[in-house]
Amino acid sequence: MGVLRPVYSHKDLHRLIAPKVVAVVGASPAPGSFGERTLSNLSGFDGKVYGVNPKYEEANGVPCFASVTALPETPDCVIVAVAAKFVEGVITECAERGVGGAIVYASGFAETGTPDGIAAQERLVSIGREGGVRIVGPNCVGLVNTHLRAGLNFMAGFQDMKLVTGPVSLVSQSGGLGYTMFQGMERGIGIGHYLAAGNSADVDVCDHISYLADDPDTKVIVCLFEGVKDGNRLVEAAERARDRGKPLIFYKMGTGEAARETAMSHTGTMVGAQEAYHAAFERAGAIAIDRLDGLLETANFFARSGAPRSGRGVGVMATSGGAAVITADKAEQHGVPLPPLSDATAEALKQFVPGFGSVANPSDLTAEVLKTRETFVGCFEAFAADPSFDALIVPLVFASPVSSGARAPLMSEMARRTGLPIVGIWMNDWLQGPGSEVLDADTHASIFRSSDHCFEAIAHWFRWHRRRTEVQARGTPARLSGRQAGEAARAALTSLPRDTRSPDEVTAKDILARYGIGILKERLAKDAQEAARVAQEIGFPVALKIASPDIAHKTEAGGVVLNLADEDAVRTAFTQIAVAAKAYNPSARIEGCVVQEMVPGGLELVLGARIDAQFGPLVAVGLGGTLVELLRDTAVGLAPVSAAEAREMLESLKGAALLKGYRGSEPVDVDALAEQVARFSEFVADAADLVEEVDVNPVIVRGARAVAVDALIVTKKHEGRG
Amino acid sequence: MGVLRPVYSHKDLHRLIAPKVVAVVGASPAPGSFGERTLSNLSGFDGKVYGVNPKYEEANGVPCFASVTALPETPDCVIVAVAAKFVEGVITECAERGVGGAIVYASGFAETGTPDGIAAQERLVSIGREGGVRIVGPNCVGLVNTHLRAGLNFMAGFQDMKLVTGPVSLVSQSGGLGYTMFQGMERGIGIGHYLAAGNSADVDVCDHISYLADDPDTKVIVCLFEGVKDGNRLVEAAERARDRGKPLIFYKMGTGEAARETAMSHTGTMVGAQEAYHAAFERAGAIAIDRLDGLLETANFFARSGAPRSGRGVGVMATSGGAAVITADKAEQHGVPLPPLSDATAEALKQFVPGFGSVANPSDLTAEVLKTRETFVGCFEAFAADPSFDALIVPLVFASPVSSGARAPLMSEMARRTGLPIVGIWMNDWLQGPGSEVLDADTHASIFRSSDHCFEAIAHWFRWHRRRTEVQARGTPARLSGRQAGEAARAALTSLPRDTRSPDEVTAKDILARYGIGILKERLAKDAQEAARVAQEIGFPVALKIASPDIAHKTEAGGVVLNLADEDAVRTAFTQIAVAAKAYNPSARIEGCVVQEMVPGGLELVLGARIDAQFGPLVAVGLGGTLVELLRDTAVGLAPVSAAEAREMLESLKGAALLKGYRGSEPVDVDALAEQVARFSEFVADAADLVEEVDVNPVIVRGARAVAVDALIVTKKHEGRG
Repeated sequence: MGVLRPVYSHKDLHRLIAPKVVAVVGASPAPGSFGERTLSNLSGFDGKVYGVNPKYEEANGVPCFASVTALPETPDCVIVAVAAKFVEGVITECAERGVGGAIVYASGFAETGTPDGIAAQERLVSIGREGGVRIVGPNCVGLVNTHLRAGLNFMAGFQDMKLVTGPVSLVSQSGGLGYTMFQGMERGIGIGHYLAAGNSADVDVCDHISYLADDPDTKVIVCLFEGVKDGNRLVEAAERARDRGKPLIFYKMGTGEAARETAMSHTGTMVGAQEAYHAAFERAGAIAIDRLDGLLETANFFARSGAPRSGRGVGVMATSGGAAVITADKAEQHGVPLPPLSDATAEALKQFVPGFGSVANPSDLTAEVLKTRETFVGCFEAFAADPSFDALIVPLVFASPVSSGARAPLMSEMARRTGLPIVGIWMNDWLQGPGSEVLDADTHASIFRSSDHCFEAIAHWFRWHRRRTEVQARGTPARLSGRQAGEAARAALTSLPRDTRSPDEVTAKDILARYGIGILKERLAKDAQEAARVAQEIGFPVALKIASPDIAHKTEAGGVVLNLADEDAVRTAFTQIAVAAKAYNPSARIEGCVVQEMVPGGLELVLGARIDAQFGPLVAVGLGGTLVELLRDTAVGLAPVSAAEAREMLESLKGAALLKGYRGSEPVDVDALAEQVARFSEFVADAADLVEEVDVNPVIVRGARAVAVDALIVTKKHEGRG
Repeated sequence: MGVLRPVYSHKDLHRLIAPKVVAVVGASPAPGSFGERTLSNLSGFDGKVYGVNPKYEEANGVPCFASVTALPETPDCVIVAVAAKFVEGVITECAERGVGGAIVYASGFAETGTPDGIAAQERLVSIGREGGVRIVGPNCVGLVNTHLRAGLNFMAGFQDMKLVTGPVSLVSQSGGLGYTMFQGMERGIGIGHYLAAGNSADVDVCDHISYLADDPDTKVIVCLFEGVKDGNRLVEAAERARDRGKPLIFYKMGTGEAARETAMSHTGTMVGAQEAYHAAFERAGAIAIDRLDGLLETANFFARSGAPRSGRGVGVMATSGGAAVITADKAEQHGVPLPPLSDATAEALKQFVPGFGSVANPSDLTAEVLKTRETFVGCFEAFAADPSFDALIVPLVFASPVSSGARAPLMSEMARRTGLPIVGIWMNDWLQGPGSEVLDADTHASIFRSSDHCFEAIAHWFRWHRRRTEVQARGTPARLSGRQAGEAARAALTSLPRDTRSPDEVTAKDILARYGIGILKERLAKDAQEAARVAQEIGFPVALKIASPDIAHKTEAGGVVLNLADEDAVRTAFTQIAVAAKAYNPSARIEGCVVQEMVPGGLELVLGARIDAQFGPLVAVGLGGTLVELLRDTAVGLAPVSAAEAREMLESLKGAALLKGYRGSEPVDVDALAEQVARFSEFVADAADLVEEVDVNPVIVRGARAVAVDALIVTKKHEGRG
């Protein structure tokens, strides 16, 4: 499981992605061949290009040599445009020659699923690793570096594209899908790098992200992917991007729930692969977007917009009443505040806005203000001077050279002059109508063709910057529970009988208690007298439960009596339970009864854990009860989570208002509860190699006290235990 | 409240919207004037145009006359392009002359909110109504009828647009916003009518919808609006469209929750104006879409796609693995089935698809099949021959003249040849790249620039056709409860004391019981002896509750004892309650105790009602408990609802799985429950003029039995009662 190495650094991949010298193995003048297409796509390259092909002295004006070894200088990057069976020889030559990296087009490797294909790919990786040759592919379309005008790929039509560079870079597992976004260049949108990964034999999307995190020309990274083998590397790369101040936007394909596995616990059912990825994105401060359309617009907005100056909200400069209403709807839906105008702003606007308009936020400045440059600029200046606004939103309704066409350059100018993000919402079905091209290609003002995408992006923008500051301020969280808790847990879990996958309830809760998780007072009593004495110690009322390794369904066996008010009642109940249990299963081994404190009233929660194949231990928290499970109101984190992260998880629940007291219910101490979740997550992380799933259900919370009423720990199958 | 007339018919508006003779009052050659712009926009009109302006004999080549009266023939439609103060005179002339309809541009009427403006507008309406002149506006940009090439408006830039007619027509309350969609014409998309409503003084969006429902050239209607005064007219118009087989797609602006009023009941809080509109759309089989972007693409899809042939699902013809995965994700998210290929289809495809592709649904046919016309057409034919597929989806990834550019005309040809909807998903950020224009302008194949919009539209398409068939099959539902139930309810509600807005619980439940709603067995007992006798009749265990007009909080007063198992216990409890109540409030009038059957265990629901200003009586149903309220899992219908509609409401709940038995809970009889909801809705409809809100909370359901455990009926304020 997993590529067992840290992600590559910028330095590791620099020769591959930003080469000075490129060689194309399989260079050819034959039209349409991979070699010929690659040479064409490199025709504008700022560096040197060599061909490798013993058949030619020259191809498409590029000098050709018989082999990589025969080249007059060592290439930084070798593009391997030959059939699968020749690739290994070429990589071997590259390793010997000290090439920085290779891009392998050929298919026929691990993607075939055949043992031969898999073995051939593993040999490539091993030769490359030993020789320091980073490999992109095989089965890969290649890369683009627009800064160097380098088309390191065989894409059709590439040489006809005007290359526009820019601060957004794209990483894509699938070559074709990434290219759909790259073609935004046809609208004038600049893209710095396009990095595909093909089979990801060596370099994968995590490495590409890591490279871009340290690439000085990249401000925002977009990554399209279906999955990674090792979740920790994804988190490592994503955290690097965040720590460098670069928003990383993920589009994750393959969200199908059909693949959700059956599991033994509720947690196993509720926490699938998607929840694991979501938890990883949260941990690393990455932005997950659920659609391809408008994703590039979102990335552009981030690249052009810096950080919010106050985090208070945005101002809306509409020029029609309808657009103002829609903008207000969408701002509310996506949780973006529209603060009221300050008095000074309102005064300033009144100079320009006619009486039938609306001086407010959102405003309806009316089409009148568009009639002269001065009035439109005056409105911008009034809004920009108001410290409540972090960005100015301009819904663009009518498209024509004299309306949208004239306003777009002004928006661009005002974005430069005010230093504020100025964001157009293109509400027009003429998708590339007059003015849109200016905003698509701009470096300061932005454009969205969907008001939903616009406000979703702004909500992400506020959150991304706020969370980044919080994470920096928090530093590395300290562990809450003692190390000896982990040792005790391991001892308990590894000493289970071979055929037993779950410790009993009392043992399970004992493990949790060592982590500082609240449990009910309870103790095993062997006879009625002892039960009465224990009850006296615990305090009345108590419950009595049969303790027998042979009775799983206690209630069914008449083995549970609740609400016992005094010693007499306890003694009577003990005898009654013993009789009932014997009647239920005459051969059952009876160890006695567990005397338990009665469950207090309070809010019901569920805590759970699952060990994910990609991401390792996950912790889940949700509000309790069947209905909540049905509605899937659960938050998931990568274990261990800090108390601060646990608090964020709790607050992200749809039913979070219940924690604060809803309709007269008593509020719970969310900090205390978050600490319990964090402590639980430490257990899960400590025991990740031993357990498979954990359910603590229910946890009853009242005020600052949380108690785990029941607990199920499922250990791994086929684990050799002592 | 409300325009108290039925919606206009096609005949009523035909002269206005499809005129043969048009006169422009205020015709002028002055560039940029309303009159001049209107004459320009009518320059291609297929009918006759006259100007009215005493100052000119001719303007822009159009003959001018001194007044409407002086015209040589009676216009069908008069465009009133003069200032507000002259409008009334023109409308008076129109009425005298027998003009069919008038379009009034001028603002300065009811939208100002001034008494003068409102009065002036009312006079226009009254003159128009008397004289049979239908009025669009005032404060309106006008209409477009592309079939007649008639620009009945003052829109800037209109004369430069190429007019393309088509089966989609647009209705818009706001002139500007509708026009953004109309500008889709610049992409080659045909639009039949563009109908704005301005102040909606006479003709409003409902009338426009009604016109288009009977317009033979319109197949699909899109309506952008913020609200209507009379919800019943909206339902009437929308049902007319549905009954004529025309999908009606609404975009409703102004969804802000800020305006949600405080209310006395839970229902009042949970059921706001948005829920009322949603209920109206459901009743009328209209399609509500929550965004402007892609709305026209959705309408085009409906116009081009006929009805699903089987309702089984769609086939996906992807040519890249990534596109196949994304398409599968989105189909699942939006609930659109992708049925497996039949064996014959799979066999047929294997001829064309190389080994590294995927013969499945979704398929990855690979880019190889695009290389020749024959292979691509062969794949279409194979998919089209499979009866599982109602439409074929083609994700378009790479945009270039030779790929997307070549495929689009083939898709168009195959849509014609196979008679199946063929739907492209344009995944490329080159928004108007090669081939997109063919699909935008086509009349059979469709295009979406968002896979979400595509599958959302397809989900609506399946649902719309299925529901229309169901509604036709159902016919008019019969009333379930007897008329005398309504008389008894009215009597009870109108005989309340003047200062009392709610009947007591027993009376409220008695009203519901008369409608056939299940309640608990309960009876008032005056003394302990009677209580014991009544309990015997009801059956043990029972509960006892104090009955006193002076004690509202029964539990607090020690006035409730539950779970009484025999006569002795009942007698003891009666005495105990009487003592406690006297202690609690010595001056309380004690009528005795209500002996009540114990509440059975079961699923908890909430039934509610609210009388909406626009739509009248609404009925709401939700699953019970605080959390559900918090999560807003409620379905709302226009009362009365039929049992079939009530069943749809229940099944639309997020927690609907609970009704069917979830995690071992007992399923409830949904048909029986739906009937209870329908009966409750009949009460609400009968008493709509008397009540304001109703809460029946909880309703406990077990199997086929549902009981209303508590009920609150709030009657209208300031209602003169006997």
